[in-house]
Amino acid sequence: MENKIPIFDKVTPSLLEAMPYQYAWKDINVCIETQEFTCLCPWTGHPDFAYIVINYIPDKNVIELKSLKMYLQSYRMVGMVHESVVNSILGDLVKVVKPKEMSIDIEFGIRGGITTTVSAQYFKK
Amino acid sequence: MENKIPIFDKVTPSLLEAMPYQYAWKDINVCIETQEFTCLCPWTGHPDFAYIVINYIPDKNVIELKSLKMYLQSYRMVGMVHESVVNSILGDLVKVVKPKEMSIDIEFGIRGGITTTVSAQYFKK
Amino acid sequence: MENKIPIFDKVTPSLLEAMPYQYAWKDINVCIETQEFTCLCPWTGHPDFAYIVINYIPDKNVIELKSLKMYLQSYRMVGMVHESVVNSILGDLVKVVKPKEMSIDIEFGIRGGITTTVSAQYFKK
Amino acid sequence: MENKIPIFDKVTPSLLEAMPYQYAWKDINVCIETQEFTCLCPWTGHPDFAYIVINYIPDKNVIELKSLKMYLQSYRMVGMVHESVVNSILGDLVKVVKPKEMSIDIEFGIRGGITTTVSAQYFKK
Amino acid sequence: MENKIPIFDKVTPSLLEAMPYQYAWKDINVCIETQEFTCLCPWTGHPDFAYIVINYIPDKNVIELKSLKMYLQSYRMVGMVHESVVNSILGDLVKVVKPKEMSIDIEFGIRGGITTTVSAQYFKK
Amino acid sequence: MENKIPIFDKVTPSLLEAMPYQYAWKDINVCIETQEFTCLCPWTGHPDFAYIVINYIPDKNVIELKSLKMYLQSYRMVGMVHESVVNSILGDLVKVVKPKEMSIDIEFGIRGGITTTVSAQYFKK
Amino acid sequence: MENKIPIFDKVTPSLLEAMPYQYAWKDINVCIETQEFTCLCPWTGHPDFAYIVINYIPDKNVIELKSLKMYLQSYRMVGMVHESVVNSILGDLVKVVKPKEMSIDIEFGIRGGITTTVSAQYFKK
Amino acid sequence: MENKIPIFDKVTPSLLEAMPYQYAWKDINVCIETQEFTCLCPWTGHPDFAYIVINYIPDKNVIELKSLKMYLQSYRMVGMVHESVVNSILGDLVKVVKPKEMSIDIEFGIRGGITTTVSAQYFKK
Amino acid sequence: MENKIPIFDKVTPSLLEAMPYQYAWKDINVCIETQEFTCLCPWTGHPDFAYIVINYIPDKNVIELKSLKMYLQSYRMVGMVHESVVNSILGDLVKVVKPKEMSIDIEFGIRGGITTTVSAQYFKK
Amino acid sequence: MENKIPIFDKVTPSLLEAMPYQYAWKDINVCIETQEFTCLCPWTGHPDFAYIVINYIPDKNVIELKSLKMYLQSYRMVGMVHESVVNSILGDLVKVVKPKEMSIDIEFGIRGGITTTVSAQYFKK
Repeated sequence: MENKIPIFDKVTPSLLEAMPYQYAWKDINVCIETQEFTCLCPWTGHPDFAYIVINYIPDKNVIELKSLKMYLQSYRMVGMVHESVVNSILGDLVKVVKPKEMSIDIEFGIRGGITTTVSAQYFKK
Repeated sequence: MENKIPIFDKVTPSLLEAMPYQYAWKDINVCIETQEFTCLCPWTGHPDFAYIVINYIPDKNVIELKSLKMYLQSYRMVGMVHESVVNSILGDLVKVVKPKEMSIDIEFGIRGGITTTVSAQYFKK
Repeated sequence: MENKIPIFDKVTPSLLEAMPYQYAWKDINVCIETQEFTCLCPWTGHPDFAYIVINYIPDKNVIELKSLKMYLQSYRMVGMVHESVVNSILGDLVKVVKPKEMSIDIEFGIRGGITTTVSAQYFKK
Repeated sequence: MENKIPIFDKVTPSLLEAMPYQYAWKDINVCIETQEFTCLCPWTGHPDFAYIVINYIPDKNVIELKSLKMYLQSYRMVGMVHESVVNSILGDLVKVVKPKEMSIDIEFGIRGGITTTVSAQYFKK
Repeated sequence: MENKIPIFDKVTPSLLEAMPYQYAWKDINVCIETQEFTCLCPWTGHPDFAYIVINYIPDKNVIELKSLKMYLQSYRMVGMVHESVVNSILGDLVKVVKPKEMSIDIEFGIRGGITTTVSAQYFKK
Repeated sequence: MENKIPIFDKVTPSLLEAMPYQYAWKDINVCIETQEFTCLCPWTGHPDFAYIVINYIPDKNVIELKSLKMYLQSYRMVGMVHESVVNSILGDLVKVVKPKEMSIDIEFGIRGGITTTVSAQYFKK
Repeated sequence: MENKIPIFDKVTPSLLEAMPYQYAWKDINVCIETQEFTCLCPWTGHPDFAYIVINYIPDKNVIELKSLKMYLQSYRMVGMVHESVVNSILGDLVKVVKPKEMSIDIEFGIRGGITTTVSAQYFKK
Repeated sequence: MENKIPIFDKVTPSLLEAMPYQYAWKDINVCIETQEFTCLCPWTGHPDFAYIVINYIPDKNVIELKSLKMYLQSYRMVGMVHESVVNSILGDLVKVVKPKEMSIDIEFGIRGGITTTVSAQYFKK
Repeated sequence: MENKIPIFDKVTPSLLEAMPYQYAWKDINVCIETQEFTCLCPWTGHPDFAYIVINYIPDKNVIELKSLKMYLQSYRMVGMVHESVVNSILGDLVKVVKPKEMSIDIEFGIRGGITTTVSAQYFKK
Repeated sequence: MENKIPIFDKVTPSLLEAMPYQYAWKDINVCIETQEFTCLCPWTGHPDFAYIVINYIPDKNVIELKSLKMYLQSYRMVGMVHESVVNSILGDLVKVVKPKEMSIDIEFGIRGGITTTVSAQYFKK
C-alpha cells in the first residue's frame, strides 16, 4: 500500500486555527488532554512520548481541535528538550488563540527511571 | 414492537421543572452527575457522549430530577459544539431554578485522541 | 424463625445520644462514614440508598455511635426527598450534640442515570 | 407529606415475573448486579446490606427486571441468615424463570470486621 | 447552525462493511470495545447506554471500524430490549464478517439500581 | 515454643524516644503512617484496629521510629475510646518530641457499618 | 475507666461454634474475609498483622461468625510462625465445622520489605 | 539545535538482534511491555499509538532489548492497518529469535470512540 | 557517622537458610513478594530495580525470611542480565529449600520505555 | 562477565550538572519523580528504598537529568538517616541549579510496619 503521508520536519504553528467563541461575554474554562504526543530527544534522536494537559479561559476565540491535533503532530520528527516543548506549545497557542489565561502541563515518559513533568502558565496583562 | 418514542429535534428548555426548596433559609450544595448524555457533532453529524457534573446552591427552588433527565435527552438529535453545550445547559437551568450559584463541568468523549472538558459558572449578583 | 424486629415508621431523633467529650478544652475533628443508609422515595415508595459522611468538631459532647446507627435506621421506612434528608439529619444531630461545627454529605444511589449528592453545614454562632 | 408505601413483612415470590426470551434457540448469559439490597439480621434485628450478582443462561424466559427489583425489596423487613438468603433467592428465581443454569453471589456488608460472601449454583438436569 | 444529520429510525445492517484479512492463513483475535452506544428502552422510550466488547477470530474478513461505528449509531432511535440488542448485533456481524468465532458482551447502564450485562457467542460449525 | 513476650497492660509513654534533629535550622515535614495499630474497645473488650497518620515539623528533635513502634504497641491490651486515643498519642508525642507543629489522624476499622476517623492538631505557641 | 477485658494467652479452639446448615442438601460456597487479625512474632515478640480469607463448602454445619471472631482474637497474645498460623486455623475450623472443602489464605503485613502469604486447603475424603 | 535524527521510512527488521540465552536447558517466560509505540494510519496518514505486550519462551536466544526498541521505532513513519502490525511484528521477531512460543497483544488508542486490541500467537512445531 | 556496612561484591548463596517445616505432611503454598531488589546492568553499570514474587510448596523446609533478605541484598553491587537473575535466584533457593515446586516472577523497572518480566518454574521430579 | 562498575562510597555532589534554561524570562515548574533510589540505614547497614519527588522553578539553569541520576546513585552504599537524605539532596541541588524555589518529598519504604515521608523546601530570598 502506497505511503502518501506528509512528513513534518519542523514545528508548524501555521497548522493551528482558532474559531470565534460564541459566548465571548461569559468566562468558561476549557481543558484539553491527550495521551498522544511524541517528539524526539535532541541528544539521542530517540522518541519521547508525553501526556499533555492544556487549560485555558478563552477571550474571543477557542482552539479548533483538529488543527490542534495537526499542530501537535508536527513535533513528531523534531528534536526538542522538555522545557522547550512546553514553552513552544504555550507560545504558539497564545499567539493564535489569545486567551485570557492558559496553562500547559506535559508529563514525559519515564527515562532512566525518572519521570519529568513540565508546567507553564500565561496570563493576559 | 411498536415504536412510539418522542423524537426531540431541538433543545427543549420547557421540559425543565423546579420544585420549591423546603429549607430555603438554609444553604445546601447539590451535586448532580450523569454519565448518560449524548448530542451530535455539528460538523460531522456523529454522536458525542459526555459526563456531566452540575453543582448548585439552591435559593427558593431545586431541580426536579426527572425533568432534568428529559431536558438532557432533548440534546440527543441536536448538533452543537462543546462550548455551546455548557453555556446552553447553564443558561436554561439558571432561568428555571434561579440558584444562588451554579457550576457545570462537561467531559466529552475522546475524539482524535483528545479529551475535552468545558466548565462554566454562574453567581447570582 | 419468629420476627420480633421493631419497625420505625417515622424518623426518631430520640434514639440519638451524646457522650461527654473528655478533652473538651481541645479541638478535634471527627469524621463518620457509612455505606449503610436507606430511606424511601416519597413519590414512588421505592427504596433509596445512600453513602453518608458526617464531619464535626465537638464542643462538650461526642456522638454515641450505636445511637447514631439506630437513629439512621429510623429512616428505613420513611419517604423523604434528598434535600430534606440532609437537613433532617443535620438538624437532629446539632440539637443533640451541639457541636462547634458540623457538615454532612449524602451521596444517593443512581436513579435514571443520575447520581445526586447533597451537602449542608452548621457553624455555631 | 403522606406516607402510602407498601410494607412487605415477608419475602414475596409472587412479585417475580418472567418474560419470554425471544431468541430461545440461542444461549446467552445474563449477568445482573445490584448494590441495593437490604434485609435484617434475625438475631439482632439490625439491617444487613449486600451486593448481589446473578448470572443465568435463560431457557424460554428471562427475568423481568422491575419485578426482580420489587421481589428483592420484599426482603427489606425480613430477618434471615446469610446462607438462607442466597438459597431463598436462587430457589424463587429458578421456579419462575426455569433457566438452564443460574448462579448467585451475595457479598454482605462487614460485621465485626468480617465480610461474608455466599454463593450458590443451579444446573438444570 | 443548520442541522443536516441523518436520523436512522431502524437498525441498518447495510451500513456494516468487511475488509479482506490480509493474513488469512494466520489466526488472530481482535477485541473491539466502545463506551459509546445508546438505544432506547422499548417500554418507556427513555435512552439506554451501554459498554460493548466484541471479540472475534477473523476467517477471510475483518470488520471495517468506521462502518461498525455507523452501524452501532443506527440503534440510536430504536427501542429494543437488552437480550435482543446482543443477538441483533451478533447476528448482523456474523452475516457480514463470517468469523471463525465471535463473542459479544454488552453492559447496560444502571436502571433501578440494577446493572445488566448480556453476553452471546458464535462458533462456526 | 516458649512465650516470653512482654504484655503491656497500660499505655507506656516512657517507651518513646527522641533523637536530635541534625538540621535544626531548617524546617522539614515528617509524615509517619502505619496500618498496624490495635487497642481494645472499653465497652466490649473487643479489639479495635486503626490506620494512623502523624505529620509534624520537628524543632530540635525527631521521633525515633523503633521507639514509636514500641509505644504504639503498648495500646494493644488497653481499652480506650476513639477520641481519647488521638488525644493520648498527640499528648505523649508532643511531650517527648516538642515539635513546632503536629497533627494526628486515626481511621478506626468499620463497626456496625460505620467508619470513624478522629483528627487532632498541636501548634507550638 | 476500669479494664475488665479477658486476655487470651493461648489459641482457644473451644471458642469456635458451628450452626446447622439449613439447606444441607445444597452445596454453597461461603467466603469469609477479615482485615483484623493480629498475633505475635515468636522470635521478636513484636505483633504481626494479617488479612485472612477463608473459603469453604459446608456439609452439615456453617461457622457461627461471632464465635469465629472470638477464636481469631485468641491469637492476639500468642507467638506463632506464619506457616503454623495457617495450619492451626485450618485444623481447628475443620474439626468444628467438618466442611466438604475449605481453603485459607493469610497475607501477613510487610516485614523487612517482604510480604508473605501462606495458603492451605482441606478436602474431605 | 541541529537535527541529525535517522528517519526510518519503512519497517526495518534488520535492526532486531538476538543474544544467546545462557540457560537454554531451562524454560522461562519473558514478558515485554511498552506504552511507546506509534505508527501511522494508512488511510488518513494520522498517527496511531499503541500499548504492546510480547510474551515468549526463548529457545536458544533472547531478544536484545535496545534492538527491539530500535525496531519498534522503525514503524514511526509507516502506514499500516492494525491486523498487519501484529502479524508483522510477530513474524519479524520469530524469524530473529526463534522462540519456542510467542504471543503479541497490541492495544491501539481509541479512534471514533472505539478501542481495538489485536492478538496473535506462534508455536514452534 | 562511621560507615561499617558489609559490601557484597558477588551473589552469596551461603546467606540463605532453611527452617524445618513443622507440618511437613501437609501441602501449603507460600507466596513471598518484595519491592526491594536492586542489582546492576552488566553493560552500563547502572542500577536495575525489580519487583520479585516467589511462590513455593515446601517439602521439609521453609525459607527463613531474614536470610532471604540478606541473600537478595547480595545482588546489590553485581552486574547480571535479567534472564540470569531469575535463574540464579531459582537455582539457589531450590538448592537450599528443596521445595516440591517453586516459581519466580521478576518485573524489572522500565528501561527505554520497556518493562520486562522474567518467570521461571521448578518442579521436583 | 567482568564487573567494571564504579562503586561510590560517599555522596558525590560533583556528579550534578546544570544546563542553561533557554526561556529564563519565563517561569515554569519542573516536577521530577523516581521510584529508583536506594541508600543504607546507618544503624543496621540494611538497604532503604525510596520514592523521590522534586519540584522546582528554574532561574537560569535546569537540572541535567542524567547527571541527577548519577548523583542519586552515589547514595547507594552510603548510610544516612531519612531526615538527612532530604536535606542533603536539597542542599546539593540548590547549590548547583540555583532555582527560584525547590521542594523535595521522599517516601521511604515501610519499616516495622511504618512508612515515613520527609519533605523540605527552599525559597530564594
